[in-house]
Amino acid sequence: MPDTSTPQSWEARAEAASFYGFTDLPTIHERGTVVLTHGEGPYVVDVQGRRYLDANSGLWNMVAGFDHPGLAAAAKAQYDRFPGYHAFFGRMSDQTVMLSEKLIEVSPFARGKVFYTNSGSEANDTLVKMLWFLNRAEGRPQARKILTRKNSYHGVTVVSASMTGKPYNDVFGLPLDGFIHLGCPHYWREGRDGESEADYTARLGAELEDTIAREGAASIAAFVAEPVMGAGGVIVPPEGYFQTIAPILKRHGIPLVSDEVICGFGRTGAVWGCQSLDFMPDAIIASKAMTAGYFPMGAVILGPDLADRMQDAAEAIEEFPHGFTASGHPVGCAIALKAIDVILNEGLLDNVRALTPRFEAGMARLAQMDHIGEARGMGLMGALEAVQDKAGKVPFDGSLSVSERIANASTDAGLICRPLGQAVVLCPPFIMTDAQMDEMFEKLEQALTRVFAEVG
Amino acid sequence: MPDTSTPQSWEARAEAASFYGFTDLPTIHERGTVVLTHGEGPYVVDVQGRRYLDANSGLWNMVAGFDHPGLAAAAKAQYDRFPGYHAFFGRMSDQTVMLSEKLIEVSPFARGKVFYTNSGSEANDTLVKMLWFLNRAEGRPQARKILTRKNSYHGVTVVSASMTGKPYNDVFGLPLDGFIHLGCPHYWREGRDGESEADYTARLGAELEDTIAREGAASIAAFVAEPVMGAGGVIVPPEGYFQTIAPILKRHGIPLVSDEVICGFGRTGAVWGCQSLDFMPDAIIASKAMTAGYFPMGAVILGPDLADRMQDAAEAIEEFPHGFTASGHPVGCAIALKAIDVILNEGLLDNVRALTPRFEAGMARLAQMDHIGEARGMGLMGALEAVQDKAGKVPFDGSLSVSERIANASTDAGLICRPLGQAVVLCPPFIMTDAQMDEMFEKLEQALTRVFAEVG
Repeated sequence: MPDTSTPQSWEARAEAASFYGFTDLPTIHERGTVVLTHGEGPYVVDVQGRRYLDANSGLWNMVAGFDHPGLAAAAKAQYDRFPGYHAFFGRMSDQTVMLSEKLIEVSPFARGKVFYTNSGSEANDTLVKMLWFLNRAEGRPQARKILTRKNSYHGVTVVSASMTGKPYNDVFGLPLDGFIHLGCPHYWREGRDGESEADYTARLGAELEDTIAREGAASIAAFVAEPVMGAGGVIVPPEGYFQTIAPILKRHGIPLVSDEVICGFGRTGAVWGCQSLDFMPDAIIASKAMTAGYFPMGAVILGPDLADRMQDAAEAIEEFPHGFTASGHPVGCAIALKAIDVILNEGLLDNVRALTPRFEAGMARLAQMDHIGEARGMGLMGALEAVQDKAGKVPFDGSLSVSERIANASTDAGLICRPLGQAVVLCPPFIMTDAQMDEMFEKLEQALTRVFAEVG
Repeated sequence: MPDTSTPQSWEARAEAASFYGFTDLPTIHERGTVVLTHGEGPYVVDVQGRRYLDANSGLWNMVAGFDHPGLAAAAKAQYDRFPGYHAFFGRMSDQTVMLSEKLIEVSPFARGKVFYTNSGSEANDTLVKMLWFLNRAEGRPQARKILTRKNSYHGVTVVSASMTGKPYNDVFGLPLDGFIHLGCPHYWREGRDGESEADYTARLGAELEDTIAREGAASIAAFVAEPVMGAGGVIVPPEGYFQTIAPILKRHGIPLVSDEVICGFGRTGAVWGCQSLDFMPDAIIASKAMTAGYFPMGAVILGPDLADRMQDAAEAIEEFPHGFTASGHPVGCAIALKAIDVILNEGLLDNVRALTPRFEAGMARLAQMDHIGEARGMGLMGALEAVQDKAGKVPFDGSLSVSERIANASTDAGLICRPLGQAVVLCPPFIMTDAQMDEMFEKLEQALTRVFAEVG
């Protein structure tokens, strides 16, 4: 039971003044809020002194852990130098200029342009505004529809939530009209009996063709996709998926945008998820690992074609009337410059690649459990799908809240992992050691064993 | 001419990789990007060593200037302690708990609940989602329309831009349906010949009544207003405005939300703009000065009634499915705790009040110029409206870009101020000295004299 008996307990103080988001309220009432004070490498520590291995990297973003000295030093140096500015009216900080250069340099694009936001949500929302602006400027004002996929996650502003293909957005009366969700590319769950992976991919391609034919290519502004779906439950698309989708979009003149908020900067074992999955997008949405979670920041990175057309459209009316107060914040940019350097040049991406076999082996071992239906993933992102019946892929009854139970049992064991649907997601920090990875799987196995004994 | 002749100049580097927002592109082509390296008190310094008095406080937000040692120390201490976390899944940092308590303590509300975002745009977007969620939960799914005013500014996400009453959003095909813009409460510009200020206020009240009657009270989710409009050009409403509006809304059961992104935390001479204008909102939108611009952060602060109803609605479905990765970021919260303390307890709000008479006197002096039609403002926010003909309130021809010229002439004189329509806006940092304020008005007078000699 949470200690809310005294009004001065941390749990009571948290509940008194905070409105919780993405939080299971029955769990809070039963267990209390976990109030965290500090971190050590991939561990976080709460006000009671309890220590948790955070296999969630915060929210996919704290890839360098919770006390990286180089990142803290970069932040502190910039706070001493220039602690805040904007990027409006033809003024911006030197850090902003340098980060834009760096992002284009590490992007898959030969050249392009960067627009800053404070989050992935704002970056997707900005992308939609950019395309609506561009299409009006180019004489196609009706080209406003956005194609995404069921189970995709693109954010929580009204527009980025409308892009998101999650049923929970129904509670807001979303999606808005014109946001169309295609099939989720999850072969294990969505493939039909006897359908090969190649046939399943072809079916998704045909669905896209049919959708474009039905809606009209001239009404569609973009197709936006995560290379590997993150909050959808780490869905790796079937073989050949993007190689099927991309030519269809190109033929119809529809931009393909890679939402790299989770995949970008190393998670899949390459710098970008689109590189792991071998496709070339027209624009990239970045956030999260871009600052290793040390600062709120997102970016729209436009490839050459969209950058040129957007610049022409803006020149024609002399100004692109959009921007956030903290767009290109000098501290965020200084941190991002350091985070990119830490990931690419100080061994983090190398460690992702080195750890991946151990991660896959751990996943494969747990996948042998009777109530794990599928282990899936890429690089250092993975999910274990709990099932009541393995052969029939039958999920547990929803009322059992099986993934919440697993997450809570993990928390009891000192491990933070994330329930998503009936899956448990693992996305450890890039700094993990072999021993920490082994600890992660041991604790998760304990939790799974305990919960499956209760519900199995 | 900007130095873009060498590809390594800062100006050329900035243009090569950045897509500019809210930036007059002809000015960039003519003058080049101003690339800033650091600040000293209310001054910022560029890569050429040029020094500017920033009468814009960055973007209304850097109220403690550009090198406040206490704020930098708070940021640095938290980077050493806990450099990042989220507020999902029933976990949050101790700083987040403390900031929520502090925000409720300094709010006009006896109690309430706080939800964090990364910007004012996200906070307004979140407010709309909250109300759509609440109204569906309470059996009024059709109550989705949002009332704001022409010239208001509420942000740049698709929804917050739809709330914003600026004509430039037409280039995106915005506002979305259901975002209704009432009259701008600007007596000097909108009052009719012979209409008293009281009559004008009554007319705005009647317009609100008529709008509610036409649209149907049951279809309206909220009325959202800045106490003093900021980016609309520092519009102080006519006497009795909120005292007329608030009872109408209350009678129809429509929440009144105060967008305090600019006014909040001292700008108007009180902690909140709604206190300066003497009305009690149902919720507050905060951002900007909340962290003195040292970190991107916004918040929705729900008053008692909305907090209770939102909590009930969330409990009924066990979770409010909304939140940003960096909502309640521990560094942002630590900085905000310090910023609020600096403003309220270390003399900044006192200085706003002490400086206001000098500010008003400076504005009144410049208002005597032949081409200044109106000087308006409250606390340390003010605007001077340029006019071609003072008696007839006739604006300059738009092709003269008069306010851009004033801003550029000010920049040449080492002063940053903001063109808005045909007005020039001043919103100096709260730390200004008398001498710096005198410098601000002297430089602005030089710029005005030069430009009016050219265009007058």
